Amino acid sequence: MGVTSAKGFVASGVACGIKPSGDLDLALVATTDGRPVPAAGVFTSNKATAAPVLVSGDHLAATGGQAAAVILNSGNANACTGGPGRANAERMSELVADELGCDQAHVLVCSTGLIGIPLPMPALERGIPTVTAALSTEGTAAAEAIRTTDTVRKEVAVDAGGFVVGGMAKGAAMLAPNMATMLAVLTTDAAVDARELHAALAAGVESSFNALLVDGATSTNDTVLLLASGASGTRDDDALAAAVASACAGLARAMATDAEGATKLVEVRVTGAVSQSDARRAAKAVAGSLLCKCSWYGCDPYWGRVVSELGSSGAAFDPDAVSVSYGDVTVCRGGVGAPHDALALQETMGARELLVAADLGLGSGSASVLTCDLTHGYVDENKGTS
Amino acid sequence: MGVTSAKGFVASGVACGIKPSGDLDLALVATTDGRPVPAAGVFTSNKATAAPVLVSGDHLAATGGQAAAVILNSGNANACTGGPGRANAERMSELVADELGCDQAHVLVCSTGLIGIPLPMPALERGIPTVTAALSTEGTAAAEAIRTTDTVRKEVAVDAGGFVVGGMAKGAAMLAPNMATMLAVLTTDAAVDARELHAALAAGVESSFNALLVDGATSTNDTVLLLASGASGTRDDDALAAAVASACAGLARAMATDAEGATKLVEVRVTGAVSQSDARRAAKAVAGSLLCKCSWYGCDPYWGRVVSELGSSGAAFDPDAVSVSYGDVTVCRGGVGAPHDALALQETMGARELLVAADLGLGSGSASVLTCDLTHGYVDENKGTS
Repeated sequence: MGVTSAKGFVASGVACGIKPSGDLDLALVATTDGRPVPAAGVFTSNKATAAPVLVSGDHLAATGGQAAAVILNSGNANACTGGPGRANAERMSELVADELGCDQAHVLVCSTGLIGIPLPMPALERGIPTVTAALSTEGTAAAEAIRTTDTVRKEVAVDAGGFVVGGMAKGAAMLAPNMATMLAVLTTDAAVDARELHAALAAGVESSFNALLVDGATSTNDTVLLLASGASGTRDDDALAAAVASACAGLARAMATDAEGATKLVEVRVTGAVSQSDARRAAKAVAGSLLCKCSWYGCDPYWGRVVSELGSSGAAFDPDAVSVSYGDVTVCRGGVGAPHDALALQETMGARELLVAADLGLGSGSASVLTCDLTHGYVDENKGTS
Repeated sequence: MGVTSAKGFVASGVACGIKPSGDLDLALVATTDGRPVPAAGVFTSNKATAAPVLVSGDHLAATGGQAAAVILNSGNANACTGGPGRANAERMSELVADELGCDQAHVLVCSTGLIGIPLPMPALERGIPTVTAALSTEGTAAAEAIRTTDTVRKEVAVDAGGFVVGGMAKGAAMLAPNMATMLAVLTTDAAVDARELHAALAAGVESSFNALLVDGATSTNDTVLLLASGASGTRDDDALAAAVASACAGLARAMATDAEGATKLVEVRVTGAVSQSDARRAAKAVAGSLLCKCSWYGCDPYWGRVVSELGSSGAAFDPDAVSVSYGDVTVCRGGVGAPHDALALQETMGARELLVAADLGLGSGSASVLTCDLTHGYVDENKGTS
């Protein structure tokens, strides 16, 4: 399963020497015949945009949404690298195009790793022919090669009947510590045009990666790409949108589960808001709260923190209408403490997955955000680059 | 020094039994003769507003900004306590008014501590006569009695020549862990009317407490009060505004220094923004970044995180124009890494106080935000209520 599950795609991963550890650090995903297919991308909103993001965006714009390959490296983000960084990202695409015999504009580029360090181009000049030679229908090495602080590789495959949506991702924080970014490359063998493909990707990202809040950081390199080979011969835009959303949700969940130092996957679900955007705002406030995140780590059911975050989130709020539950156990109703089964609550708080549900009691807006706890492990992973 | 430094005020602090530890938990600040004087208040914007905040706001509105006393308790926030909580806060003011022989509306109320637990009123019924009997010109016990997770009491006195602004505060996080809130009570013997007093307080809070970002939480109980006895006979509104701002800044700095688990006081200073509000937004993004806060804890000079937060802050940003310095050591210039003295940098990163300065290179907007690092100690203090 993974980025080669859909027909028409090959992938590979090698160690080209960017990472001092010698671990895999260069991945390639390409169409089997090296010809361009419809492609879509969603990129970071960070204005300190990394060079590969600029290059990939330019290439998709120049081709009207066509791509034959995606080259990805880990260990260096090629961000805050100025004009030379931009030239290096372009050079990566040129090297791949030479190997595959396609246009340079049909090659997209992703990087993740340290910010502000020039790319070691000799390693890439050597590595790109190697990674091209290694292309196969086995996607695992590519998924391995984009890992940074990820403890596991992240792959997904959704069988939609007539076609498949597969993919791989990396990301252990919205912005990982030393090694920036979340990246995801999805492929499908559905038949679709570039415009519908982009709509499906944008909607899928909104309900998955954009509803994921690990530490609130939006990296310089965040990129999600989707290529469609058409090899299944099946066209069903609605089914494709659903399958893409499902694949994105699977990868987002894998990221939250593997978040740096996390011991708990937490879903914050807000209902009863006056609008969906209010519900999202309130859920993000709770999911982003250091105090709440620490309390989940400690299995502490103190709900006052949750209500305080809801009240200061900016969402419409009535202190006498709010209820809060952990799993099935309601601890606050009508804005005040509610009698509850303390043993059941203890069990709920101690589980590996926790649902924090708040009903604002005002309307029908609802939203869910996935997050995790804040732990000693997170502090350890992020207090130094070494 | 402290809340009784200005002429015309007395204060006291006792243990009335709210805190199981037996520590001081009830404080009273009053005018020496129990008569009302001009008073101003700035309160939390959290919509889950605690009962004492509602009562104090109502009282100031009803009297047109006059108060004779402030009663404060720690150990219980009287927040998320519904109608009974409101009645209990009113009852606190009534008990004090009976003791001092003033109107109930001239008594303001502050609470800090656990959310969602009814106030233990028998303790307050017993404690209020005791704390009134203990009133004296010594303010230390009052400052002690409002501590929750604060490791030190926080007092300030600014001598403005003809008059004094003194005060006390508690707060070890914008929202402390188990025991919510920042509270500050300031007094002055300057002569001033309620309207000018409010203007001075609002401006002082904006440049101090509102430029303090420990963990981003806005509590249910945040309150800053200022009473003016007029006992100095000196009226100078500009000098008063300056002295109030200075007193607020002193207390805010004391809070950031004493922030839960912090090992470092950090000033994030942004210059060169297109506007002051952009500068504030960018500085808050860096100051609120978990990744940056962890890196300061680890004395890690990795500046990519700072640039990434600036770029995603929403402030106008040009990746080729930004510079970043730690103290005097510039590590990024024109958006790329700058050669620097590594030993000097190591020394700067290791100090107890750190300046993180970013120049956006776009305009003349500037702002400073005080914050601290994110440490194992913070996680420990916040992972449980016990």
